Amino acid sequence: MKKILNAPEAYTDDMLRGIYAAHGDRVKYVNGDLRCYCTAQKVPGKVAIITGGGTGHLPLFLGYVGEGLLDGCGVGGVFQSPSAEQIFEVTKAVEAGAGVLYLYGNYTGDIMNFDMAAELCELEDIDTRSIVGADDVNSGAPEVRRGVAGIFFMYKAAGAKAAQMGTLDEVLAAAQKAKDATRTVGFALTPCIIPEVGHPNFELKEDEMAMGMGIHGEPGIWTGPVRTSKELAAESLKTILDDMPVASGEEVALLINGLGATSVEELYILSGDVTAQLKEKGITVARTFVGEYATSMEMAGASISLCKLDDELKGWLDYPVNTPFYVQK
Amino acid sequence: MKKILNAPEAYTDDMLRGIYAAHGDRVKYVNGDLRCYCTAQKVPGKVAIITGGGTGHLPLFLGYVGEGLLDGCGVGGVFQSPSAEQIFEVTKAVEAGAGVLYLYGNYTGDIMNFDMAAELCELEDIDTRSIVGADDVNSGAPEVRRGVAGIFFMYKAAGAKAAQMGTLDEVLAAAQKAKDATRTVGFALTPCIIPEVGHPNFELKEDEMAMGMGIHGEPGIWTGPVRTSKELAAESLKTILDDMPVASGEEVALLINGLGATSVEELYILSGDVTAQLKEKGITVARTFVGEYATSMEMAGASISLCKLDDELKGWLDYPVNTPFYVQK
Repeated sequence: MKKILNAPEAYTDDMLRGIYAAHGDRVKYVNGDLRCYCTAQKVPGKVAIITGGGTGHLPLFLGYVGEGLLDGCGVGGVFQSPSAEQIFEVTKAVEAGAGVLYLYGNYTGDIMNFDMAAELCELEDIDTRSIVGADDVNSGAPEVRRGVAGIFFMYKAAGAKAAQMGTLDEVLAAAQKAKDATRTVGFALTPCIIPEVGHPNFELKEDEMAMGMGIHGEPGIWTGPVRTSKELAAESLKTILDDMPVASGEEVALLINGLGATSVEELYILSGDVTAQLKEKGITVARTFVGEYATSMEMAGASISLCKLDDELKGWLDYPVNTPFYVQK
Repeated sequence: MKKILNAPEAYTDDMLRGIYAAHGDRVKYVNGDLRCYCTAQKVPGKVAIITGGGTGHLPLFLGYVGEGLLDGCGVGGVFQSPSAEQIFEVTKAVEAGAGVLYLYGNYTGDIMNFDMAAELCELEDIDTRSIVGADDVNSGAPEVRRGVAGIFFMYKAAGAKAAQMGTLDEVLAAAQKAKDATRTVGFALTPCIIPEVGHPNFELKEDEMAMGMGIHGEPGIWTGPVRTSKELAAESLKTILDDMPVASGEEVALLINGLGATSVEELYILSGDVTAQLKEKGITVARTFVGEYATSMEMAGASISLCKLDDELKGWLDYPVNTPFYVQK
């Protein structure tokens, strides 16, 4: 295992110490627990949005806490859920009188802990709603789909609506609208290594890749020789558009997300191919996001997300944000 | 070789096509040559700053073209210099009546081509100055040092001064001031693969790393077992501070740069250790930058850059910038 760290068991907390040292003017932790990650700039009367999930996916999840986006994050160990208590402590710290939206990925452990946190909130009369990201088309039927990079569009929509002082129901509706309009397909070229495990979480032969693999190494729909960027673009778009039709003349936002080790150069090669193939179908890419938005440590690979746009969604995507990990003017 | 691409020989141009498709409202190419990369927002009367270098280091070099930073970039093939003609065409396109600063890394091919471009400019009465980044302490004596991630601080200083409508000499002086105040130490954990070569450019055994290795795989000062983050921080700081003393009570900006495959989680572990060790020496990290600023495709590893600060440098580092690859409010 080749990683820059001190001790595998200290990976998450050492990372958090580094983040607070770098960005302590903008984020803080509460309850004496590094993993209770909160904005330092609470806005009275604003709906608070809280996310959470395992470590190993930066900038997901905590990297989206900041102006115009989220207010707090429960931080789990590598690929592990934060506890209900941690989510509850974050909630109490960031709720600002207008209710709380829990917005996170569709994973069993996270659902259990966010639901328990919501019950604790009810006892303290904190109004919560929940919605899960579930954009990974190849992971199954809509209700069981995993949440991957497309959650970014949900964060953007809900974050903008909350910053515009929308009500809790309006913020939830914005997240739901982005969710309904978003689909993702991803593929891995190499595995990654969980620090405390010390060896790869699955194997891929030299020149082999896995289409549809999840960001924790969940099995994909096929494993085979590495395909070209154009082939990957074509297959991914077919999968997405079969599931969510987009007509000629319509507009989409495109997110090309790197899983960790894949170079930004390659992401732009893929982005160019996806954009050209959509253009051939008469679909315009009105907004393009390329980079690392939801990673899996040093996994090589990428995901392609489309969000079908209307003017309201465009406005939310264009809403300025400013976090220590992501800035948009 | 596991990369997302169509054909190795199309890597650079396919990448550029993707970038122009995504960001065509903000950047453009001139002379019918994708590799002549220019801002689409020319500011009359402003000193133009032009950089250039090989592909494979995104966001270096072209990613820093945009508001508050640079105006144009000559784009070479993977790890190759752009041609003098390409640099000259970029220069003619972006110069805005106040002269041109060439600001790039200290590599033989780049120097030759930028110098030839400067001669071509002289024939057309375009006033140019040149300065090279040479921050990599382990690569030799000051005059032969390679330019690596620390060039970011030179870009920031020169870019801010130019945006503030400084004269050509003032913009050069700002870059020089940042250069004099900046040192970098880097280390690689894995090699990377040049697409047209198809195999790694050097070898490192399992659990072996190379201290001082360059971003093109130039040999380092030692190769040995992977050390801990704290050990890497301590050795790197000793190397930097032996070369550029920083007294207790002084302030620095810290840039922790990922070379490509190393996760952002690890970069923050390293950042936390460097910050803590500087604190023990009485040195305050007043600004922290963590992420991928100068990569080597899918190489694993990181670099640590310090820039010794005064109020003027702080102001330049805080100056807002907005490029398709890097935004700072």
